[in-house]
Amino acid sequence: MATPDYTPFVFLLLLFQSGVWGVPVCQTPQESPTCGYKSCHATKPGMLNVHLVPHTHDDVGWLKTVDQYFYGDRNDIQHAGVQYILDSVVDQLLKNPDRRFIYVETAFFYRWWKQQTDDMQNTVKQLVNEGRLEFVNGGWCMSDEATTHYSAVIDQMTMGLRFLNDTFGHCGRPRVAWHIDPFGHAREHASMFAQMGYDGFFFGRLDYQDRNRRMVAREQEMLWRASESLTPPMADLFTGILPNGYNPPEGFCWDQSCDDPPIRDDPDLEDYNVDDVALVYKTNHIIMTMGSDFQYENANLWYKNLDKLIRYVNQMQSNGSEVNVLYSTPSCYLQELHRANLTWPLKGDDFFPYADSAHDFWTGYFTSRPALKRYERISNSYLQTCKQLEVLGGPISRKGPFGAGDSETLKKAMAVAQHHDAVSGTEKQHVANDYARKLANGWAHCQVLVSNTLSSLSGSSAPRVYCEHLNISVCPLTETMNVYNPLARPVSWPVRLPVNGTAYSISDAKGKVVPVSQATAAVRRGRGYAVNELLFQVQAPPLGYSTYSVSLLQNGPPSPPSPLPRAPTAVQNKVWVLWYNASDGNNSESIQMSGAYIFRPNTSTPFIISKTAKIETLQNSVVQEVRQWFSPWVSQVVRLYTDSRALELEWTVGPVPIGDDLGKEVISRLDSSINSSGVFYTDSNGREVLQRRKDYRPTWNLRQSEPIAGNYYPINSRAYIKDDKDQLTVVTDRSQGGGSIQDGSLEIMLHRRLLYDDVRGVGEPLNETSDIYPEGLVVRGRHLLSLSPPATAADTHRPLAQEVVLQPSSMDFEKEFSGLQAVLPPAVHLLTVSQWDQDTVLLRLEHQYQASESKEHSQPVTVNLQKLFSTLDMLGVSEMNLSANQWKDEMTRLDWKAESGTHHTGVTNQLCLLSPLGCVKTADLL
Amino acid sequence: MATPDYTPFVFLLLLFQSGVWGVPVCQTPQESPTCGYKSCHATKPGMLNVHLVPHTHDDVGWLKTVDQYFYGDRNDIQHAGVQYILDSVVDQLLKNPDRRFIYVETAFFYRWWKQQTDDMQNTVKQLVNEGRLEFVNGGWCMSDEATTHYSAVIDQMTMGLRFLNDTFGHCGRPRVAWHIDPFGHAREHASMFAQMGYDGFFFGRLDYQDRNRRMVAREQEMLWRASESLTPPMADLFTGILPNGYNPPEGFCWDQSCDDPPIRDDPDLEDYNVDDVALVYKTNHIIMTMGSDFQYENANLWYKNLDKLIRYVNQMQSNGSEVNVLYSTPSCYLQELHRANLTWPLKGDDFFPYADSAHDFWTGYFTSRPALKRYERISNSYLQTCKQLEVLGGPISRKGPFGAGDSETLKKAMAVAQHHDAVSGTEKQHVANDYARKLANGWAHCQVLVSNTLSSLSGSSAPRVYCEHLNISVCPLTETMNVYNPLARPVSWPVRLPVNGTAYSISDAKGKVVPVSQATAAVRRGRGYAVNELLFQVQAPPLGYSTYSVSLLQNGPPSPPSPLPRAPTAVQNKVWVLWYNASDGNNSESIQMSGAYIFRPNTSTPFIISKTAKIETLQNSVVQEVRQWFSPWVSQVVRLYTDSRALELEWTVGPVPIGDDLGKEVISRLDSSINSSGVFYTDSNGREVLQRRKDYRPTWNLRQSEPIAGNYYPINSRAYIKDDKDQLTVVTDRSQGGGSIQDGSLEIMLHRRLLYDDVRGVGEPLNETSDIYPEGLVVRGRHLLSLSPPATAADTHRPLAQEVVLQPSSMDFEKEFSGLQAVLPPAVHLLTVSQWDQDTVLLRLEHQYQASESKEHSQPVTVNLQKLFSTLDMLGVSEMNLSANQWKDEMTRLDWKAESGTHHTGVTNQLCLLSPLGCVKTADLL
Repeated sequence: MATPDYTPFVFLLLLFQSGVWGVPVCQTPQESPTCGYKSCHATKPGMLNVHLVPHTHDDVGWLKTVDQYFYGDRNDIQHAGVQYILDSVVDQLLKNPDRRFIYVETAFFYRWWKQQTDDMQNTVKQLVNEGRLEFVNGGWCMSDEATTHYSAVIDQMTMGLRFLNDTFGHCGRPRVAWHIDPFGHAREHASMFAQMGYDGFFFGRLDYQDRNRRMVAREQEMLWRASESLTPPMADLFTGILPNGYNPPEGFCWDQSCDDPPIRDDPDLEDYNVDDVALVYKTNHIIMTMGSDFQYENANLWYKNLDKLIRYVNQMQSNGSEVNVLYSTPSCYLQELHRANLTWPLKGDDFFPYADSAHDFWTGYFTSRPALKRYERISNSYLQTCKQLEVLGGPISRKGPFGAGDSETLKKAMAVAQHHDAVSGTEKQHVANDYARKLANGWAHCQVLVSNTLSSLSGSSAPRVYCEHLNISVCPLTETMNVYNPLARPVSWPVRLPVNGTAYSISDAKGKVVPVSQATAAVRRGRGYAVNELLFQVQAPPLGYSTYSVSLLQNGPPSPPSPLPRAPTAVQNKVWVLWYNASDGNNSESIQMSGAYIFRPNTSTPFIISKTAKIETLQNSVVQEVRQWFSPWVSQVVRLYTDSRALELEWTVGPVPIGDDLGKEVISRLDSSINSSGVFYTDSNGREVLQRRKDYRPTWNLRQSEPIAGNYYPINSRAYIKDDKDQLTVVTDRSQGGGSIQDGSLEIMLHRRLLYDDVRGVGEPLNETSDIYPEGLVVRGRHLLSLSPPATAADTHRPLAQEVVLQPSSMDFEKEFSGLQAVLPPAVHLLTVSQWDQDTVLLRLEHQYQASESKEHSQPVTVNLQKLFSTLDMLGVSEMNLSANQWKDEMTRLDWKAESGTHHTGVTNQLCLLSPLGCVKTADLL
Repeated sequence: MATPDYTPFVFLLLLFQSGVWGVPVCQTPQESPTCGYKSCHATKPGMLNVHLVPHTHDDVGWLKTVDQYFYGDRNDIQHAGVQYILDSVVDQLLKNPDRRFIYVETAFFYRWWKQQTDDMQNTVKQLVNEGRLEFVNGGWCMSDEATTHYSAVIDQMTMGLRFLNDTFGHCGRPRVAWHIDPFGHAREHASMFAQMGYDGFFFGRLDYQDRNRRMVAREQEMLWRASESLTPPMADLFTGILPNGYNPPEGFCWDQSCDDPPIRDDPDLEDYNVDDVALVYKTNHIIMTMGSDFQYENANLWYKNLDKLIRYVNQMQSNGSEVNVLYSTPSCYLQELHRANLTWPLKGDDFFPYADSAHDFWTGYFTSRPALKRYERISNSYLQTCKQLEVLGGPISRKGPFGAGDSETLKKAMAVAQHHDAVSGTEKQHVANDYARKLANGWAHCQVLVSNTLSSLSGSSAPRVYCEHLNISVCPLTETMNVYNPLARPVSWPVRLPVNGTAYSISDAKGKVVPVSQATAAVRRGRGYAVNELLFQVQAPPLGYSTYSVSLLQNGPPSPPSPLPRAPTAVQNKVWVLWYNASDGNNSESIQMSGAYIFRPNTSTPFIISKTAKIETLQNSVVQEVRQWFSPWVSQVVRLYTDSRALELEWTVGPVPIGDDLGKEVISRLDSSINSSGVFYTDSNGREVLQRRKDYRPTWNLRQSEPIAGNYYPINSRAYIKDDKDQLTVVTDRSQGGGSIQDGSLEIMLHRRLLYDDVRGVGEPLNETSDIYPEGLVVRGRHLLSLSPPATAADTHRPLAQEVVLQPSSMDFEKEFSGLQAVLPPAVHLLTVSQWDQDTVLLRLEHQYQASESKEHSQPVTVNLQKLFSTLDMLGVSEMNLSANQWKDEMTRLDWKAESGTHHTGVTNQLCLLSPLGCVKTADLL
């Protein structure tokens, strides 16, 4: 066996029950359809070819909810109705076979498709087969890149692409990734797109300095080498920057929402010189995005004028014009770039942070709506549990004694929550509420499914009790306390139970009494809620349950916390909570204010909440705690669990006071003696880690104009600073923004409450209140700090972060159970276990260590699939691409030449699979 | 021969050249198409039937020009593009055969039709033949009713209806007149619609008090007896008031321009109770106008939701609902009203003035843009001349030595100028400019035609010299001065020539020297213009030319005016020019201001310009003049021509000063000793005259809230007051507003200059300036006053008004010529002579006297068609309806029963025609 390349993900379709694949998941390319690259209009080699790409950008929620956008409801907020867009575009495509359209957001397309007649569906299939309607990107939504976790992104992409594959087969598979609107671009997204088989990627937004440099240097197209771990071209993605964001050139917008003059009998095109655009690109092909937000609701306006434009401009060729205009798609444009056979500059870093002007850094949304960001993250965790239990429970999980349950509802809710105005926090308040409502509804459907599975596995159909709101309510205590662990290795997890009694005894499944901390709760939860709290460590097997018995011994107040003999760690005293005063724009339109998108502190020095704090301490065999109240709206608990590898900082912020008319952006800052030399590290979508350097960008000479906001980066799961000796890593429980402004210091923004809109479209100040928090949202979260030698830091933060991402669920179940026969090796993360169709299961295994980050774990590893599941017999296995819409051995991507040699760092990690078919040679499959 | 009824118009198609009709002008109804009444959806007799009428209201110019509206240009002003509306509606009609649409404005439809492929044209014909697309109204535009002249209205209706007839035949003929937007309704319009064969008429706007009364009394439908002269039902028109203007009911607007929520899976219709609407109508049918201004550009939005609405509401019938909703058209609704076989209240007066609230009288637009109103009127005159000369000249008129000429361009320009935001003066300034530009372009085309005809008739192709701008420029004087008379009787007309010389001699065609007034011009025309003026009477034969020779005798200044020995008439000193201070709304939104539509004086007392005037007088054998300068911006010339029946008041107003920040509405007021007892009279569209009474409406108990504006009425050609002894009649040269506020007094508004918009949509103050008048528009016009015994007053004002409407054109021509062999009898007006197609000519003769208004002329009269034209041999004649889109003998209209007995005044007038076929028995043809 040849040494395979490092393959972080392996994506398998597992076959159970019968010897044949139930449904061909990926339809094999047929000869007859002329879709894809074959369907492109001819270009003229000697001329400048202008690719007109009719498109619409349909936000899966923003100013209106996704439902309102689909139906065209609440047009008083924004005129937009996607149902009409698709109606209209299909009509207009039929009128002229030359016309093209691309569609992007499958969440909307799916919904429209369901409402169509068979005739219309056949008509649309024909259009797709002829390449007249082409899907690009094709995920359920166009995900945000700064605040999403790779796990949820892969899920949403898979759902969208699967629908396209199931519905249209080969011709429904997008060739191009298309992130025209997200506010900055993550390297991990590019890596994922490459592994999903995309041939290229186009986007619209990047730092204005970067764009200016690239225009001069003709570097608006590049080969993005999106991983330092993967052997090229595995994570190489051809990437192009669109010439005008995603809008049409000025004067050429013919949508109902535009005012540009239509083309009349004698069009006067003198004002527009396509040559100017051509000057900043390398080939004699340029792309024009003919459309924008929710356009093409009346596609006739666009197409009628585009028909005329093409006819008129090309007629001028007979008078010597060398401009050729054609209907095109991103893939047709990409094909011409590929045919040009040029070499392209390499890109190794990412496109964060995004600034559209000197004082306009889009780094606020890294933290905006912290409660929604957390709810999205725990919903992902619960969805993974739900999907696992759907597989483990079998058909009865979906229809069982507790009724009809499903994972689909939460899948869809999670998929729309990945949208770049959803988890990003940049939507209107009522839309944020709708995302949360959708997630809650998804939970309810999953709870039925989970109950059915538990009932099936245990043989009992006693009512289940869920206690999902542990942080705000008192759980109705049952005799047993159960925890499901969605990870493929055993975990130990602190469980906190709010109670009204004083003394309890807790024992594990074997009857052994476990240590329990019984004290007043560190955090007050308001009137009517429990003041006492039980805290104990729970051990749970891989993909399995463990059971703990809880007995009330005595009512009454618990003993007060005992004095703490010593500070838990040396770091403790260097954690500060501070706030930046948000710029209010000085009532001037020319001065940028902080808002949902933009972070702009008024001064670079944050204000400290309080130099002193009211303190309580607690120490027992389970935990040592220091409870700090800095002000009525800021408190913190510093905790060290016995045997824990990390210090827990539980912060509570809010309601942020605004009586002083000052918007506030609250940060937690860790100051240390680490000699970080202006360098720090943040993860990309929860996976690989990128190096950041203060006041510096790897690809251009930065003129720094915002000393704080211009040094903020997205933190999805972790950030760290290090020197030769120490690495201080912070694992977060949600996406947040942060930076290292001073050497040895790491700051993370926790919460934002702002009084002004930042004029990027949302039209509301980010000033969250709710029924529960009428005075302003109170947010709580955790940072897990670990201090290790750099060489072994990953051994801690990798598993720690996965434990935060995939957290145990507490549920009522009467026996111990594990879905796995064996624990997976520490380097391997079980990313996905999901029922695909009746007889097949989608499994994603992931080598979770980056190249060279751990001496022990950044190594090849072997998994025996044959003996993986305890309750399922696997009959076959077939490898797929990351998004599960192509067989791995049919995935061929366009090859691109890089200008310079590879930046590739030699990698020796691999994930080899033992299966009924033998070892799957992952390298061969790429 | 039976005594025929009084028939004011007779409309004939005359056949020349060959013995057969060249083209069947009116296609005979075929059996196969199921258009019209046959194509209506079934209704449910026991239920409340709700007729949903999808429609668009497409102004032929308003905020944008007609071209901008067609193309969708300048959507920054207003989003509207008619080309897209028709594209979209046809598409959507094809999707569901139940759907219906009506289209109204042929100016737009014609233009769209020309751009369509044969395939599309056939598709549309099919839709029309099946009644799925139905034309209503069908004129070139939806004409204004307050400021138009019947001659131009008939022309524009004929042009639109002819296009529909030529294109679609029987199924293209509208059954219903549809004036949903005009701001008040003229009785003469109803009379014309009846004579054009319409079965019914619907409109949207009427006085709010009138509407309220009618809703209570269930009198929103009526039989309008639109003439006191015609025998019923000749001018009877079933008339219905639409329930909500022309808009959809609240919450049910699904256009792209609306924000109402779309129908989703579970529509909640509880808020809307169709029964409330049904309560104010007489039958169990109600109509809902589903559309509005420029709607249906994206018809899918409308139809998709209407489909759902119909399905959902009718589904409820199975649960006992008694509401039945259907796609319908105004004619289908009308048919159901007719089937109800009820009796309907009679209406004898008109719907002026229109008020939408207590202080919001739409009586300002009667005068708004007085210069445009005049230009429209003289353009009509020139168009009639042009059309006559096209007939008299034959084919060479259109292609001759002077190039290609045509009457079509001016016909179309005049047709769009009839629109209710064109001659009404309620359009934006740039749109008013466009109407004027279109008219000027039409003149240019006609001038080529006229030159070709003159060349043909005279055998000379010498260059023609036009002197159309007699009021502002010096004419290049040629040796001969020629005048064409478009009337069918000889006229004498004062011609005024601006000159730089002092002494001239003028002689007629027979060499006889005619008296000429040679003096400084009464009116200064600014620097560079002539200061002297020749004035002499010109005699011209019917439809013919006469020639005058002009010789310069001496250069230098003319003799100054001589002192005037006496005032020309007793009336002279009682003509005042005054101004009302326009309400400026006091900066409050709740107080209505004067604007393009609304007249609202701040106080009821007008301000006098000056009690004294600088005076010059002139008296010679041609004229007596008193020239009065009241202020730098108001002057007046009082003239009495020798042998004239009327006193001429030439007023010049402007630039109206606004340095005092006061908007001004300038009136001319005639005070007399006539005992008018609160009663006065105004004409309706230049034809029949209606009695008006101060602070009174014939059909309801008026609560008068605006003592001035609420007593203003449109004056299109004349107004008068009278008592037993005297009648003082004023003939105007354009449409104006006026009233009789005090007994014996008659005031006419001349000019308006306002500083505020009146919030009815136009969005501009009516504050006219131009390149020529940067300080503010200067307007000049004439009032012709006659004082007669009431019994003979019509004998003067009828011919006088026709001379003002059809004025002679001065043009260079070398011999005398008359197109008529014989003068028409004085009672008969030659309304139309127009080439129809190669071998046929459209002729309209009109009995121009109202019943009983003249002892001498309100009598039967006979015209011998055989001997009418001097140069044309008539081979056949066939009678048509007024709009020339039906053979008279095929015109059958629905019959309606009136509640009360006829108001009919016995009439004995008739117009009998002697033709090659004998006397056309007009009565038999109705």
